[in-house]
Amino acid sequence: MAGNSFGTLFKLTTFGESHGEAIGGIIDGCPAGVKIDLEEVQREMQRRKPGQSAIVTQRKEADTVKFLSGIFEGKTTGTPIGFIIENADQRSKDYSHIKDVYRPSHADYTYDQKYGNRDYRGGGRSSARETACRVAAGAVAKQLIKDMKITAYTSAVGEINLEKDYKDLDLSEIEKNVVRCPDEETAAKMEAHIREIRSQGDTIGGVVECVIQNVPAGLGEPVFDKLHAKLGQAMLSINAVKGFEYGSGFKGATMRGSDHNDLFNEDGSTRTNYSGGIQGGISNGMDIYFRVAFKPVATLIQKQETIDTEGQKVEMQGKGRHDPCVVPRAVPIVEAMAALVMADFYLLNKTSKI
Amino acid sequence: MAGNSFGTLFKLTTFGESHGEAIGGIIDGCPAGVKIDLEEVQREMQRRKPGQSAIVTQRKEADTVKFLSGIFEGKTTGTPIGFIIENADQRSKDYSHIKDVYRPSHADYTYDQKYGNRDYRGGGRSSARETACRVAAGAVAKQLIKDMKITAYTSAVGEINLEKDYKDLDLSEIEKNVVRCPDEETAAKMEAHIREIRSQGDTIGGVVECVIQNVPAGLGEPVFDKLHAKLGQAMLSINAVKGFEYGSGFKGATMRGSDHNDLFNEDGSTRTNYSGGIQGGISNGMDIYFRVAFKPVATLIQKQETIDTEGQKVEMQGKGRHDPCVVPRAVPIVEAMAALVMADFYLLNKTSKI
Amino acid sequence: MAGNSFGTLFKLTTFGESHGEAIGGIIDGCPAGVKIDLEEVQREMQRRKPGQSAIVTQRKEADTVKFLSGIFEGKTTGTPIGFIIENADQRSKDYSHIKDVYRPSHADYTYDQKYGNRDYRGGGRSSARETACRVAAGAVAKQLIKDMKITAYTSAVGEINLEKDYKDLDLSEIEKNVVRCPDEETAAKMEAHIREIRSQGDTIGGVVECVIQNVPAGLGEPVFDKLHAKLGQAMLSINAVKGFEYGSGFKGATMRGSDHNDLFNEDGSTRTNYSGGIQGGISNGMDIYFRVAFKPVATLIQKQETIDTEGQKVEMQGKGRHDPCVVPRAVPIVEAMAALVMADFYLLNKTSKI
Amino acid sequence: MAGNSFGTLFKLTTFGESHGEAIGGIIDGCPAGVKIDLEEVQREMQRRKPGQSAIVTQRKEADTVKFLSGIFEGKTTGTPIGFIIENADQRSKDYSHIKDVYRPSHADYTYDQKYGNRDYRGGGRSSARETACRVAAGAVAKQLIKDMKITAYTSAVGEINLEKDYKDLDLSEIEKNVVRCPDEETAAKMEAHIREIRSQGDTIGGVVECVIQNVPAGLGEPVFDKLHAKLGQAMLSINAVKGFEYGSGFKGATMRGSDHNDLFNEDGSTRTNYSGGIQGGISNGMDIYFRVAFKPVATLIQKQETIDTEGQKVEMQGKGRHDPCVVPRAVPIVEAMAALVMADFYLLNKTSKI
Repeated sequence: MAGNSFGTLFKLTTFGESHGEAIGGIIDGCPAGVKIDLEEVQREMQRRKPGQSAIVTQRKEADTVKFLSGIFEGKTTGTPIGFIIENADQRSKDYSHIKDVYRPSHADYTYDQKYGNRDYRGGGRSSARETACRVAAGAVAKQLIKDMKITAYTSAVGEINLEKDYKDLDLSEIEKNVVRCPDEETAAKMEAHIREIRSQGDTIGGVVECVIQNVPAGLGEPVFDKLHAKLGQAMLSINAVKGFEYGSGFKGATMRGSDHNDLFNEDGSTRTNYSGGIQGGISNGMDIYFRVAFKPVATLIQKQETIDTEGQKVEMQGKGRHDPCVVPRAVPIVEAMAALVMADFYLLNKTSKI
Repeated sequence: MAGNSFGTLFKLTTFGESHGEAIGGIIDGCPAGVKIDLEEVQREMQRRKPGQSAIVTQRKEADTVKFLSGIFEGKTTGTPIGFIIENADQRSKDYSHIKDVYRPSHADYTYDQKYGNRDYRGGGRSSARETACRVAAGAVAKQLIKDMKITAYTSAVGEINLEKDYKDLDLSEIEKNVVRCPDEETAAKMEAHIREIRSQGDTIGGVVECVIQNVPAGLGEPVFDKLHAKLGQAMLSINAVKGFEYGSGFKGATMRGSDHNDLFNEDGSTRTNYSGGIQGGISNGMDIYFRVAFKPVATLIQKQETIDTEGQKVEMQGKGRHDPCVVPRAVPIVEAMAALVMADFYLLNKTSKI
Repeated sequence: MAGNSFGTLFKLTTFGESHGEAIGGIIDGCPAGVKIDLEEVQREMQRRKPGQSAIVTQRKEADTVKFLSGIFEGKTTGTPIGFIIENADQRSKDYSHIKDVYRPSHADYTYDQKYGNRDYRGGGRSSARETACRVAAGAVAKQLIKDMKITAYTSAVGEINLEKDYKDLDLSEIEKNVVRCPDEETAAKMEAHIREIRSQGDTIGGVVECVIQNVPAGLGEPVFDKLHAKLGQAMLSINAVKGFEYGSGFKGATMRGSDHNDLFNEDGSTRTNYSGGIQGGISNGMDIYFRVAFKPVATLIQKQETIDTEGQKVEMQGKGRHDPCVVPRAVPIVEAMAALVMADFYLLNKTSKI
Repeated sequence: MAGNSFGTLFKLTTFGESHGEAIGGIIDGCPAGVKIDLEEVQREMQRRKPGQSAIVTQRKEADTVKFLSGIFEGKTTGTPIGFIIENADQRSKDYSHIKDVYRPSHADYTYDQKYGNRDYRGGGRSSARETACRVAAGAVAKQLIKDMKITAYTSAVGEINLEKDYKDLDLSEIEKNVVRCPDEETAAKMEAHIREIRSQGDTIGGVVECVIQNVPAGLGEPVFDKLHAKLGQAMLSINAVKGFEYGSGFKGATMRGSDHNDLFNEDGSTRTNYSGGIQGGISNGMDIYFRVAFKPVATLIQKQETIDTEGQKVEMQGKGRHDPCVVPRAVPIVEAMAALVMADFYLLNKTSKI
């Protein structure tokens, strides 16, 4: 296994470089009989798509998912779901400026070290273009587990933090602004900040928070595949992610047990939820929530010193159409990965007891 | 797969409850010809062992690893390495006080929800007793990748933070104090804090930091099995872990690209290392470092309200010999999991190119 | 896992129904740096293709493999190799005669039992159309392990047996006749027999034999993944296969140890080769050879009684363009599956010892 | 993965050499709530055990399975089931006669080629001793799928064939004779033949047939994990197996489609069963039956020429207590492997449709 598959029963395998003819994937293990709303899939794709607003990259990609198998007369058949997403204009571009150069904090150097050669066109396999396949597959996964509600949103851009808890927010507001922050005032600040950063040719990091509601108790597998451990892997596998915490997270490390323990109500729910809906790696029926930290995009519209493949110092500058802040477009990707994890554990749990 | 295996090529599968006759595991995929120093394995076990100091649980367990196969005349043979670790006194204890009770923030409730029944003796499979197998297997993994140097240490206990960077610390000091903090002064404060917390029958969280040095470039597999994504899963799978960050981590989310990018030196090394030694999911030869947040242990020596398995309110109190702070004993577990991840990627990388 | 992947390190996952827009697959784990001759891939496809001779199905399919990723400037890059093969005319056909009917000895009934619904067009996922992906991937695998020589041929059609050992045959003759039997006289009899069977609207079974030469010693993994066990799974997974034997095979069951043991020459080779090049599940450097039994194709151009999906008796008759004998076209499929197995074990063996 | 695991959801991993302290395994993925009759497990062990009759090896091994986890108060808990089986007298033996010698048609040479060193004591990992773990795990699997009836028996010893179909036999007779052939007369001939072969210091091959009854329709996964493909892998992974066929098998290769097709009855059952209960890789509810060919045991009580590890010619002779014919003791092993396959597909099928 070379790392291009995710999941045990609901299993996604992807392929594709940013500048080949198409990228795509195969979902193996989706049960038969799931109604698939293809427009819903496409709506998710639009949320991730470049060019959707003034604060994201202005690249043009249609990002239309073409399903090639596994869906018949509107329902899954139990056979593998193959799909492709064509890359727009993949041949017309000029990559001579990066062919022999290692861009700072990109994967150019490490791919060359690992593989001895690389597809230098636009990042190749390491490009975030690959996440389009995750969103497509996640949209299918969401339809399998449609009783669960997965909602992500932007909770920080640089130093601008959304200081409210998810329970004090109206999550239906998320899509009403371009940064996908469900608090109008904070969203406006975030947007202004991103615009300013972009005007400087610079980039900025941020945080996505995600909540999963209506989760049945019992999902997750001990020991190594604890629910939060697989969520962590899933989130950390998204380009530019530097950290993951769930429930009380890093703040929990500062707390005392007498404050941190979630005492039970008589119905099995808990009064507090520092556990983040997961105990012993298994969902307890409370809301699952977690935070994902994204670093600033490495491509700057500024001159930077770097080296070429011969180890000589050179100067380079990114061209054109990159995201000043990856977070608004990362929101649907976080949801998609969460959906893949939950769909997999949902299926696995069908065999937990006789 | 029900989550009791970890790794693709260097693969550990474990079994065992805290109060059965023994726990154990199988390492499948360790190459032949690795010299195994059994005393070194046992030394790692001592670092995790209960009763090793006044600030950890005073339970008595010999924690002797008995290897049953796969090692012959001091070397691995390429066949699976089976091992067991006997549980001490597993029959003599009294669990009637927890048999029908769901302890707060433990896995009692979720295991019952998932499996319909559970081994209620001392936490069963969800007990941190299981991590003894990880330390044993990690000690074998370390001997396969002995050129890499994996060092973990306590960097926070509650609000007491070690404010220094790992490069400003003498990592050889770690084992000189019972909290495993390589700064004498901070260690003293941490120890005093743990003693105070314990005297109150309470518990406290903390943070372990880990550094991996002498890592060859090229380890890690795109896309879903990025090096940091598997490190994240590995760490989050340890009992009580709530968060994981590497390199710039959550702080990176507040930074600008022009500050965060790691510019190259001519030899391929970088001037800064916000990337944490990993770019595009693959090691770049710089130090890998990451932080792991642990929540406070849920077993308190205080009365707590909870419910029984019928949903009736009851009061309970933990008995005797639990850790007031899990962090000092978690240090070797973090190292062991890091060793398992690195050993696996080390083997996988042997097939990256012809 | 729902069975659409094969291999551990060199891993093929396929998708596609006979009458969707396209079928395809992803090869994950092929090392970087393998030169890929795309014309060679296409030549393998021609060997499997319908319509290639008068004795096979006259369906029209271009069977052009379109690689979408993982190959750059003529070499593999180490990233997943995605490919699709378009289905010809997939929309124009009429399946009303089989929509509600369970064809005898096909997978219609079992798919309905398993999945509750099925894509009834031309066999859907259970169609041998799917083997086109195996041939494409096998052609890539062959280029990774190009020092090994994998040769399959038709050794029986119905009662007509090629009575010679592979060592007494000129294997370069195989492609000189349409049945792919390297003995001119036997080939002529087989061809005549197939024509006769076809003229009766009937079908006939047969046997493919395969030889793998220049195999390095050491390939194969004990215990459950013995080289011959994975070869067996690979062959039995091909449509219509009913049996597999290697080395002395079923005849070996009648022999005495004193006759069957392969005595060593001083260079480690053996005087006889009843072991079929495999001892203890691991290649010993001698030729690997095995036989694969194919049943007669189930689609007849004759009236047959059967039942519909309501359990009512109906009469049906296959239409048009099926193979009277699957064996000539199965030859390249057997080779492809053998190549996938050998490529996987070749990579796995790189981690057997330090 | 180095081949010591079998199964996707009901997953067995084993370890152990013939002459270490113990062998053992871990079953991961058995659902919670399965009642486990430990005496039944031990009864299966007795059927495989050395020394059970005059015609098998007279080695002494208690073969007591000690379960260490995963079973609590008579039921599985859903956590991994670890077990060990101690080796008797493993230290007292003298292996100097085989230490530097490659025994013909054993795995000595291939293990050395693969691993560079080997545990030469009694075959090490390649010894059939390892199959004891399969029988133990198979006995657990049988209790999960207790509605299915798995019955194997000896159908050939050398040239002596049981010429009857399984439907014409009284399968309850199998355990009434030492060769495990359910036909008294044939059994007597087989036993006499084995005695004669043994008196000559020679060995003889044979065939085991197996029938699985009361199989629900829908088990098995297309494409690569067809039910018969995994049964084939399972059987071929047993020591000394050279061939596998199911349903019409190799004889099916000689038949015409008009004879071979299994016409439906109105209830979905079929009039004939050349398909062997499997169509398109999925069970159809009819009996599954297959045949497994075993070669003669390679250890002879005769002088044989061979080579030593330096490539020098030497003469050797097996010592003492080996099986003249492996087939009677292979019967429970075939059943155990069949049970593991069926248990795995039984669980996988729980996720085939919503």
